Amino acid sequence: MSSGKINVSVENIFPLIKKFLYSDHEIFLRELISNATDATLKLKHLTSIGEANVAYGDPKIEVKIDKENKKIHIIDQGLGMTSEEVEKYINQIAFSGAEEFLEKYKDSAKDSGVIGHFGLGFYSAFMVASKVELITKSFKDEPAAHWTCDGSPEFTLVPHDKTDRGTEIILHIAEDSLDFLEESKINGLLSKYNKFMPIPIKFGTRKEKIEQKKGEFVESENKDDVFTEVEVDNIINNPNPAWTKQPSELKDEDYKSFYRELYPMQFEEPLFNIHLNVDYPFNLTGILYFPKLGADLQIQKDKIQLYQNQVYVTDNVEGIVPEFLTMLKGVIDSPDIPLNVSRSYLQADGNVKKIANYITRKVSDKLKSLFNESREEFEKKWNDIKIVLEYGMLSEDKFYEKAGDFMLYPTTDGKFFTLAELKETLAANQTDKDGKLVILYASNKDAQHSYIDIAKERGYEVLLLDSPIVSHLIQKLEADNENVTFARVDADHLDKLITKEETQISKLSDEEKEKLKVVLETIVPKETYTVQLEAMDSKLTPFMITQPEFMRRMKEMSQSGGGGMFGMGNMPEMYNLVVNTNSDLATSILSTENEDTKKALIKQALDLAKLSQGLLKGEDLTSFVKRSFETLR
Amino acid sequence: MSSGKINVSVENIFPLIKKFLYSDHEIFLRELISNATDATLKLKHLTSIGEANVAYGDPKIEVKIDKENKKIHIIDQGLGMTSEEVEKYINQIAFSGAEEFLEKYKDSAKDSGVIGHFGLGFYSAFMVASKVELITKSFKDEPAAHWTCDGSPEFTLVPHDKTDRGTEIILHIAEDSLDFLEESKINGLLSKYNKFMPIPIKFGTRKEKIEQKKGEFVESENKDDVFTEVEVDNIINNPNPAWTKQPSELKDEDYKSFYRELYPMQFEEPLFNIHLNVDYPFNLTGILYFPKLGADLQIQKDKIQLYQNQVYVTDNVEGIVPEFLTMLKGVIDSPDIPLNVSRSYLQADGNVKKIANYITRKVSDKLKSLFNESREEFEKKWNDIKIVLEYGMLSEDKFYEKAGDFMLYPTTDGKFFTLAELKETLAANQTDKDGKLVILYASNKDAQHSYIDIAKERGYEVLLLDSPIVSHLIQKLEADNENVTFARVDADHLDKLITKEETQISKLSDEEKEKLKVVLETIVPKETYTVQLEAMDSKLTPFMITQPEFMRRMKEMSQSGGGGMFGMGNMPEMYNLVVNTNSDLATSILSTENEDTKKALIKQALDLAKLSQGLLKGEDLTSFVKRSFETLR
Repeated sequence: MSSGKINVSVENIFPLIKKFLYSDHEIFLRELISNATDATLKLKHLTSIGEANVAYGDPKIEVKIDKENKKIHIIDQGLGMTSEEVEKYINQIAFSGAEEFLEKYKDSAKDSGVIGHFGLGFYSAFMVASKVELITKSFKDEPAAHWTCDGSPEFTLVPHDKTDRGTEIILHIAEDSLDFLEESKINGLLSKYNKFMPIPIKFGTRKEKIEQKKGEFVESENKDDVFTEVEVDNIINNPNPAWTKQPSELKDEDYKSFYRELYPMQFEEPLFNIHLNVDYPFNLTGILYFPKLGADLQIQKDKIQLYQNQVYVTDNVEGIVPEFLTMLKGVIDSPDIPLNVSRSYLQADGNVKKIANYITRKVSDKLKSLFNESREEFEKKWNDIKIVLEYGMLSEDKFYEKAGDFMLYPTTDGKFFTLAELKETLAANQTDKDGKLVILYASNKDAQHSYIDIAKERGYEVLLLDSPIVSHLIQKLEADNENVTFARVDADHLDKLITKEETQISKLSDEEKEKLKVVLETIVPKETYTVQLEAMDSKLTPFMITQPEFMRRMKEMSQSGGGGMFGMGNMPEMYNLVVNTNSDLATSILSTENEDTKKALIKQALDLAKLSQGLLKGEDLTSFVKRSFETLR
Repeated sequence: MSSGKINVSVENIFPLIKKFLYSDHEIFLRELISNATDATLKLKHLTSIGEANVAYGDPKIEVKIDKENKKIHIIDQGLGMTSEEVEKYINQIAFSGAEEFLEKYKDSAKDSGVIGHFGLGFYSAFMVASKVELITKSFKDEPAAHWTCDGSPEFTLVPHDKTDRGTEIILHIAEDSLDFLEESKINGLLSKYNKFMPIPIKFGTRKEKIEQKKGEFVESENKDDVFTEVEVDNIINNPNPAWTKQPSELKDEDYKSFYRELYPMQFEEPLFNIHLNVDYPFNLTGILYFPKLGADLQIQKDKIQLYQNQVYVTDNVEGIVPEFLTMLKGVIDSPDIPLNVSRSYLQADGNVKKIANYITRKVSDKLKSLFNESREEFEKKWNDIKIVLEYGMLSEDKFYEKAGDFMLYPTTDGKFFTLAELKETLAANQTDKDGKLVILYASNKDAQHSYIDIAKERGYEVLLLDSPIVSHLIQKLEADNENVTFARVDADHLDKLITKEETQISKLSDEEKEKLKVVLETIVPKETYTVQLEAMDSKLTPFMITQPEFMRRMKEMSQSGGGGMFGMGNMPEMYNLVVNTNSDLATSILSTENEDTKKALIKQALDLAKLSQGLLKGEDLTSFVKRSFETLR
């Protein structure tokens, strides 16, 4: 029997770390600046507790490109390292100084913001550099050290004459990575990953005009007289972004200006924001914004940025933020979200699930308070937020439960009801003889205009439900609300949609009706239209095309995905042709002797009914228009 | 000065490997079966070159779940390991046996199909197992070895009495991974990752009915009389998938049945396939299928599966396959595609770029040969493939260059032209007085029916270009083809779209025209319609609404993204009202004395023109229909 310790040789693991540590090579800059930030924050902490007897000052991190010599320098003014510390922290892969630091100072350092985790970040330098130098001077009274490694596991470590405190990393950029020597490339990376990191980051200088006579404003023909140009450090980051502050410190304007900082190319203002701030059982801060949503929801996604301790991680928050909220914008910052793990793993992680639930709750709380504080303002925003809310009701049970308090149902007249209000308001007029409350709706004010018109003449309210997923929502609402049913205004003739006790008296005898039906059925195409004779008010439209609610809804659900009945999406459209037997036209058709005239009459009436339902198209429409122009002449 | 070697300690790196080696924990099964496959293929190779004096036989890999004891077994009949080899290959992390094997047998082993790369795969077992056992018997005459490790870096290695050749891995599943003990879960993983691996994989058994009297078919009331049920190994994979064969070995039916194997839930047959097969400068095999594309292109993506040596890797081929081809289906297998790297890195990789170019070329070659072999068949498929081709022309210059040979332009009558044919056919009739060839098109046969009708009466061809991106394509074609211009049939009145030398004589005097214009402009809303008087054939439509080509196209381009002019997408719609001054209606309007009648006449004519252009909606349409019903009565 033998036993022992599994061995890992640096010759084998080093190439893997270089190649596979991070899938994106550009990450090297984020990692090295994170290290520089840690070194600075650690010094800040040590000076604050009296363990370092130096002035913390106003430290910066500087990034410099030396294009000629193919080098990038990253320089910090942090706590630096002695030779022994270089031996310990650099020469041993995966030995993290950050963990040791947090362990040692665990009581005082908890909020110091130290980022590092695994001590691997430094080695990401080799993804882009053929050779790496590290020149470092500790805050302790010891000589500086100069470490060099050419990417083989061999290093050299010699003293250096650097006297100012801190660490300078020099990357000798490899031939296959020379694009990182472009200023625009580094600028892009800095503004992607480091825009909100807590220590100021200098990248070059820029010219700034400053007023010569401070505090005085001199009117002058030539403004250059009063202003003078000076060269100042170009600081690329905002070390104190809004989300790191307390909500009480921030005004509405601060939230808006942070939105512009996040999305400089976005001209529209957000509708409102939700400040996230929780310590327990997980740590999470952030600000979410409800943007004005356009029609295309697809392109709105991936706008929430995920940070860890102010370091940008990704703009793909799928699995962390509930799906219906990925249409929002803003930032989330949490050290508790496991990175480098797959989305499916994330979705199973208990902590992540809690985060998603917390965000859902905060969003519904905010919506409820906006609704309660100013319903009028809330109604104005409705069109821009409804799709998120509807989707949330369908996909998150927890949200659905809360949404009853603020979910609105607008009418075609621009009134807004909650479901409870709707039930109360409509009860008297829209309850049918079986005690069922029938809620009428339209999906398009233009296309269903004539049907909406008739319903409103009766005093019925017609909702305007025009989202693509609304048929799913209606289905769910019906299932959860007994004795409530939804019907689109063109689903049938109104007396059939909301059946009352009274019945209309028919002008035609049964015999006449039968005769009318036979005539109609010889001309109206059976494949598409079922003739339905109704004794309606004689003033109502003589011909009308309707489409039964159930079939249409199932079709829509199966087309918009995830519901309805299998195969329904491909069924042909089927309509009813409702003919008002009390109309003068019905009488005319019956009394017309000439077959051609009778046929023309029916055809014209059918065409008009099709026009109202948007069904008169192509050749039929062209000949209808031609005919009509001829009668005009 | 000091120098030395960077050190990596196993205590530090081991937890990282366990946690971060793969983002998906489920990968462990793929890795262990890949190792088992390698062990088997290595033995095959050694026996074939006489270096192993054992019978290769008919080896399988077996996966077994022992739910009660929370264990998973993976058993192979490959070459096995001696104690010394376990010490060397298992106890040293990242020391890959596969690389050493390929190096040693580099001339003969090139095509052996060995998968392993970095020797890390085995350790992925610890992502799901709290303890791992390995029992292995080498094909060499040495005792079996039994290695155990509980996830700390400590291991034990003792002899074992196993006598049959091969390796058995026993995973003691950790408490947080117990879902991997579900048969359905493992079944799902096997069919996702291992469905086409080259060694048969057994997972349980299944009952199979076999005929008792072989070769004879006996008709019987009770079929059970002739068949008997036996238990057979349940082999989950097809070790010889179609793409590993030569195109010459495969018939059309083989390609179709492989399609059904890949997409068992897909009921529609593919339109055609493209067999990829290249050795140099990179290794790539695969079969791509053109599916029947529906209207929603988004959901069609991510249907191509990427394999490496028959091991499934991903169904996200973004960056590897040119974007316009991600709408296809099928498989690609290449050991030369770097994995575990980001998409942006992939796109910059020279090898990957070559692969994308190769695929583009093969696709255009196939399209050209389909076109040449049977144009009729090709035309039948056009509607299902056009969007891919159009998108390819816009996004890949190399494809655009080749597409001239097979790109078709269908007419509203169902004829098909190439661009060259179109130029030749239309030259005589559709060249305007400035020598410009005007190609007329419609985007919707129904909506533009009346305009198409008039153009066809003149003997003009009208193309049907109805893809959402067609305005971008037209713009590109115009830029590349001098003296060719595209105009939608409703862009202006035909004499203006294709200007010939002859001019129509006007019935009205200039004075009458001016009078007519003034009358019209008092009634036709200026914000939307510009009145345009034209002396046209008196039989042509009296009122017609047109929309100028340039504005409309720019608007469409800016709406479908990536083109047009900034801000154009939000411009209001502007139309021209073309009035035929030679029409009887124009004369009637002029001669009508009663102001109300004149107004009603113009309004009705405008409504009819709006109907033809799909612009009469909502309240206007409702009152038009009401009015028309009243005149019917």
